[in-house]
Amino acid sequence: MNSTYGTNFRVAIFGESHAPAIGVEIEGVPAGMKIDRDALQAFLDRRAPGRDAYSTSRQEADIPEFLCGVKEGVATGAPLVAIIRNGDTRSKDYGNLANVPRPGHADYPAEVRFKGHQDKAGGGHFSGRLTAPLCIAGGIALQLLARAGVTIEARAVRIGGETDPEKMKDAIAAARAEGDSVGGVVEATVKGLPVGVGDPMFGGLENRIAQAVFGIPAVKGIEFGEGFAAAELKGSENNDPYGIVEGQVTPLTNHAGGILGGLSTGAPLVFRVAFKPTPSIAKEQDSVDLSTRTPVKLVVKGRHDPCVVLRAVPCVEAAAAIALYDAILEWRKEPA
Amino acid sequence: MNSTYGTNFRVAIFGESHAPAIGVEIEGVPAGMKIDRDALQAFLDRRAPGRDAYSTSRQEADIPEFLCGVKEGVATGAPLVAIIRNGDTRSKDYGNLANVPRPGHADYPAEVRFKGHQDKAGGGHFSGRLTAPLCIAGGIALQLLARAGVTIEARAVRIGGETDPEKMKDAIAAARAEGDSVGGVVEATVKGLPVGVGDPMFGGLENRIAQAVFGIPAVKGIEFGEGFAAAELKGSENNDPYGIVEGQVTPLTNHAGGILGGLSTGAPLVFRVAFKPTPSIAKEQDSVDLSTRTPVKLVVKGRHDPCVVLRAVPCVEAAAAIALYDAILEWRKEPA
Amino acid sequence: MNSTYGTNFRVAIFGESHAPAIGVEIEGVPAGMKIDRDALQAFLDRRAPGRDAYSTSRQEADIPEFLCGVKEGVATGAPLVAIIRNGDTRSKDYGNLANVPRPGHADYPAEVRFKGHQDKAGGGHFSGRLTAPLCIAGGIALQLLARAGVTIEARAVRIGGETDPEKMKDAIAAARAEGDSVGGVVEATVKGLPVGVGDPMFGGLENRIAQAVFGIPAVKGIEFGEGFAAAELKGSENNDPYGIVEGQVTPLTNHAGGILGGLSTGAPLVFRVAFKPTPSIAKEQDSVDLSTRTPVKLVVKGRHDPCVVLRAVPCVEAAAAIALYDAILEWRKEPA
Amino acid sequence: MNSTYGTNFRVAIFGESHAPAIGVEIEGVPAGMKIDRDALQAFLDRRAPGRDAYSTSRQEADIPEFLCGVKEGVATGAPLVAIIRNGDTRSKDYGNLANVPRPGHADYPAEVRFKGHQDKAGGGHFSGRLTAPLCIAGGIALQLLARAGVTIEARAVRIGGETDPEKMKDAIAAARAEGDSVGGVVEATVKGLPVGVGDPMFGGLENRIAQAVFGIPAVKGIEFGEGFAAAELKGSENNDPYGIVEGQVTPLTNHAGGILGGLSTGAPLVFRVAFKPTPSIAKEQDSVDLSTRTPVKLVVKGRHDPCVVLRAVPCVEAAAAIALYDAILEWRKEPA
Repeated sequence: MNSTYGTNFRVAIFGESHAPAIGVEIEGVPAGMKIDRDALQAFLDRRAPGRDAYSTSRQEADIPEFLCGVKEGVATGAPLVAIIRNGDTRSKDYGNLANVPRPGHADYPAEVRFKGHQDKAGGGHFSGRLTAPLCIAGGIALQLLARAGVTIEARAVRIGGETDPEKMKDAIAAARAEGDSVGGVVEATVKGLPVGVGDPMFGGLENRIAQAVFGIPAVKGIEFGEGFAAAELKGSENNDPYGIVEGQVTPLTNHAGGILGGLSTGAPLVFRVAFKPTPSIAKEQDSVDLSTRTPVKLVVKGRHDPCVVLRAVPCVEAAAAIALYDAILEWRKEPA
Repeated sequence: MNSTYGTNFRVAIFGESHAPAIGVEIEGVPAGMKIDRDALQAFLDRRAPGRDAYSTSRQEADIPEFLCGVKEGVATGAPLVAIIRNGDTRSKDYGNLANVPRPGHADYPAEVRFKGHQDKAGGGHFSGRLTAPLCIAGGIALQLLARAGVTIEARAVRIGGETDPEKMKDAIAAARAEGDSVGGVVEATVKGLPVGVGDPMFGGLENRIAQAVFGIPAVKGIEFGEGFAAAELKGSENNDPYGIVEGQVTPLTNHAGGILGGLSTGAPLVFRVAFKPTPSIAKEQDSVDLSTRTPVKLVVKGRHDPCVVLRAVPCVEAAAAIALYDAILEWRKEPA
Repeated sequence: MNSTYGTNFRVAIFGESHAPAIGVEIEGVPAGMKIDRDALQAFLDRRAPGRDAYSTSRQEADIPEFLCGVKEGVATGAPLVAIIRNGDTRSKDYGNLANVPRPGHADYPAEVRFKGHQDKAGGGHFSGRLTAPLCIAGGIALQLLARAGVTIEARAVRIGGETDPEKMKDAIAAARAEGDSVGGVVEATVKGLPVGVGDPMFGGLENRIAQAVFGIPAVKGIEFGEGFAAAELKGSENNDPYGIVEGQVTPLTNHAGGILGGLSTGAPLVFRVAFKPTPSIAKEQDSVDLSTRTPVKLVVKGRHDPCVVLRAVPCVEAAAAIALYDAILEWRKEPA
Repeated sequence: MNSTYGTNFRVAIFGESHAPAIGVEIEGVPAGMKIDRDALQAFLDRRAPGRDAYSTSRQEADIPEFLCGVKEGVATGAPLVAIIRNGDTRSKDYGNLANVPRPGHADYPAEVRFKGHQDKAGGGHFSGRLTAPLCIAGGIALQLLARAGVTIEARAVRIGGETDPEKMKDAIAAARAEGDSVGGVVEATVKGLPVGVGDPMFGGLENRIAQAVFGIPAVKGIEFGEGFAAAELKGSENNDPYGIVEGQVTPLTNHAGGILGGLSTGAPLVFRVAFKPTPSIAKEQDSVDLSTRTPVKLVVKGRHDPCVVLRAVPCVEAAAAIALYDAILEWRKEPA
């Protein structure tokens, strides 16, 4: 088991979709940090379901309750725990799935791994709902980064093969109408990182961000800068020459996406994340009854997103924020 | 600093390109493991430079010396350390680079991060040469995986825009002739993993493999199964239905690349890694003299690969092997 | 910040004495483990305050609420979180302490470390109350150990200089009457450990148990086997010869307390823990007003134990159980 | 396996007594640190054997060879590795021990744990010889601490029941004459720590120091401040009142040994470590032949210390230095 990220800003995400609560325990929130609850809530609202026609109709307030680590809005320096109660659950929607793994979900390998004891309702600990506590931690990390002059902005750049925002929405609506789903790509840009943040080898910014971002369900790929396109370029095209801009040494192009040797270069850090189409679809699918080991036709009921990409945008920001704030703390502890 | 990977099979990679030695410290090699030195050397030889016309002419035997943890070819259970002496170094080739960061290399952010004290010769700790100890650890992990019935095979599927092996070689030769370089894509396939290996959230197989693979210099992207292409599919296309094959529950297709919810599904684990073109090229490039903060024209001398992709193939296997053996140990400690 | 213990059975303890809740997040509870809630509650009741004349009169039910990781009494394999709401708090008792650190408590260094932002009421995150979640985790670990045939039993062997149980109680009563407090020593015995559990160097059983046990407030010393008395013995007296007992290789004496080289020997593991007298006393003490930096006379109000040793007995069992179960998991992952 | 200490200043100790080499890999030595090799060697010489009549006659130069991480005496910021070749080994001295575990040594549990594959010669990875790389890491940590104004000084306060230095030497000489050995107690004092270093719960200074110090072979107990004696005191005696000394808030006594709630108080940090008598003695002892499972009389040949306490003094300083520098880095990364 390993639901914890980081060594300096340590984030342990817990909960199951239909358990009493989901939440997050964070070690490393600095004493005296004033947590902007309004900004945090606004951030959480960006991933909350039920806000528009494009996402699941499950209504959840997703208002975190802070159990400890904060007093009158200010971090005490002790571990901070925030939880969200699971109110509006309809476990019966999942009743018929008990023995039939849904294609594209973790059901089958989880059944084997946890010997049938995992909480199956709503995907349990594998549910996309766990991105809510991820966003609590990420929202706090974003506020800490902002104090250090670092910003992260992500957006959907591709959904269902479309790159125009209006057409993306059409693609989602079309998928919904068909009882199907679509995937997409989120691009994130980080500005304000000092030069030299990150570590060599396994502690590079790419390693760190990738380890965090693959914690978001449905992510199947990540690339930095030119990414897979860099494989098609020549060195003379892909290398970023240096120049002096406003008195600073600066890469004059940014094919590297702001990272060389795992370290930040001073240029904006740019990465893209591939999301597969939501596995929950209304169409009939082939599966197997695990108790009888016979093929069955499966129709997944319940409320599902035809596309998680729009709601995943803040999740990508959150995961990157956690990874980057942890990297910055690593960098900070080096003696001057 | 973080040049260590893993918690169960812990791999600490050390060394600098022109230091007395490079090497690796490994904790978690099981007592009694017979290390097949011939197989290990054959594996190391796959990444060694100087073997053909397509790679750098730096001649290195790359024969590891085991300092401890092995006795008469059998692991003792204590930490295992293997080193490779750095013999054939030509530091003077790098003399003129002391104050001029090479585009595409870690030189500039490393200069800032380590305040000019990093070993600059040959890229120091950021050198591709550090993949030799990675391959020592990975070669041992591959032998341990083989005992568990798990195999990893990688190959270059794209170089310089070409997918045919002969044309790949032509692309490399052409780049060399131009004093330029090309990148490419390596695809790896893992077979024999039991169902359910991996952990939720940040401990998923994608997270683990990505964290390890981005430790190889020049990697700029990773994708699993359909990867970025999944973003273009519909759920009904991308989901892998289940059936019964030879009495076993089996995904009937493998768009997921063998991973759902971070856990192995029993299907082959498939991932692809994007390598940028080697940053060291013979062509003149724009850079800056850091001492005078003035623009300079840089010509990088020395011996360099026009393409690292072929030599990187075993490195991808090594990184994946380390990540997967660590994940298997995590899985093994769960009580029956 | 580091309120987490372990790598295989990971226990993160959170909360502050007067925050909404205290609790624990545990990773590594095996899926399918049936948690005996009655046994767990009986264990927690052993440390709960307000049960007799010898401890504080603060009444707390200390009944854990499980937020996730357990379904119908069986562990799901996902992170387990249990919390205890802080009901009966009297923050005003601590009002006059805001700027005056109590001798023997963490108040002053915590004020400096957390820049005055720590939750001061009731000792905040440093409160002995945090041993309740420690005992939740420890109680679960004890049940897991019992399944592996391992038992831990601790008892007070010395209180206020007395070794007879009745005289210990007299010493506590006398201290209470004087508005003073007494310390003592707890001895723990672990039986049923397989031979060879533990790791060399920093992962030895002594290292692991010590790291966990010093997490209990008021602990100032720990010794294994003969401990400090071993320093007075000769090698010929302190070495434990081996013999064959019931067909098994067995140490014939146990000066080593069941540990050699950090590994279990098969003999009972025996250690003793020194507890200082409770720092909260009714007597007037010298302190300093931190805001004015002037000396003041301090009288600590509130409800306090004249001796924590009796209530600490289950805490010692809990800390040892967490450490040992983690060590056993480490040992289990080695291939057969 | 866990031969690594620390998260910020990470120290991995490797080697076996009769392997080609022993050594240490360190991550976290700051780039630009000038390592004083003479001071380091002088520190290592304090633990080296063969220097006087009181210790083993095995002659070892114990001069570390730096493989990487240092260039021209200055740390590069990359992982630092130093090794010591094992020259003067007499494996045949240990030949008759192959199947007969020495009482008081790790032989028997190591045999079980590592299934007979451990390197048995000279204690293998459990040898006291491994304290040489511990002292390399500790010696570097001491230099880093000195730059931060922190000093550590340890001394033997008790050997063979004697507290007078001359009588200690007599006790050692007497033990040697008898073919026996004696143990003792080392006391360490740390000065110059800022107030508030350390972390609550499992990251307290006591936890951290204990985890490191029990990594030294033969340690069986540790106590801080009054330690076990605190168990005999009343709260009014053991609490340290605060006053203003030279304008600073200061504990007026130091029963706490400079630590409250795991955090430094500003008073000197004081702890004592109990060492058992060296298990290697010349006297005949009872043991068992593990291959035949029959009792045998064992006489241990070879060169052994009748008392490790004097040589252990720098080891205690080293272990404490590693623990404290790691704690200081933890403390440093908190934003101002």
